[in-house]
Amino acid sequence: MSRKWQFIFLLLPLLAAAQSPLSSERPASTTAEASQAVHHVLQAQVEAWNRHDLEGFMAGYWNSPDLTFFSGGEITKGWQPTLDRYKKRYTGEGREMGALDFTELEVKVLSPDSAVVTGRWRLTLSDGKKPNGVFTLLFRKIQGEWKIVHDHSSGG
Amino acid sequence: MSRKWQFIFLLLPLLAAAQSPLSSERPASTTAEASQAVHHVLQAQVEAWNRHDLEGFMAGYWNSPDLTFFSGGEITKGWQPTLDRYKKRYTGEGREMGALDFTELEVKVLSPDSAVVTGRWRLTLSDGKKPNGVFTLLFRKIQGEWKIVHDHSSGG
Repeated sequence: MSRKWQFIFLLLPLLAAAQSPLSSERPASTTAEASQAVHHVLQAQVEAWNRHDLEGFMAGYWNSPDLTFFSGGEITKGWQPTLDRYKKRYTGEGREMGALDFTELEVKVLSPDSAVVTGRWRLTLSDGKKPNGVFTLLFRKIQGEWKIVHDHSSGG
Repeated sequence: MSRKWQFIFLLLPLLAAAQSPLSSERPASTTAEASQAVHHVLQAQVEAWNRHDLEGFMAGYWNSPDLTFFSGGEITKGWQPTLDRYKKRYTGEGREMGALDFTELEVKVLSPDSAVVTGRWRLTLSDGKKPNGVFTLLFRKIQGEWKIVHDHSSGG
């Protein structure tokens, strides 16, 4: 083997390693993309809620038994129990889903696969009442999709 | 310059670059250290609370006007207003701090400088009552110290 080829073969793994920092850094564009993706999930949730599509709303949550939903001092664990809680609370007799909106949204992207979102939720009911409260959401990017893995909501 | 020296000078910046991924990765030890540091902050908070040292308890929070404290649907913003809220709620006339404990703690380290903690809080009061609830905390490592930058507590 010539000296030239020895040199190139020695360099190849080093060049490959030298690329790695670029992929593990968080350029502004990655943070902006993550923030935009999280906003899209929340917007899709609001739209689903407002067409009274609870399963569509639940698509924003991680479909896992490890999803955690905290509200009013209580812990609900798992995607299905969380859906059941929403159904009981908003589609039971004499209940209504109303019109949902989120305000004061703040998205903090913490890493390439995690973000925390805070904000206020508000429902407008047919009798004009507007139950409202605040929420803290932990999003993780799982298999390429941003999902809520923990929700803490209070008020009402 | 000899071929050998040319070779070494070519390699140096590549070797330096090749080190970078190691420092930007999250080895298990870094995650464990972060988790341990966060547990220490919480333990110090419990100890401060239980000697009725509210300022000591508040040392776990980021001393900033940007600290956010959500509870029962309400937003308190800033370290001083958060302290004032605790004072009013637990040291006012006919109030007591009681004995605090945290259970079901789960620490998720999300990046070298961020972690989310969930758990249950419980007070044991002199009349035997045990008001309790749940919390979600966002910790950030700020100037080398892990601090709560957002607290969402509910129940009571």
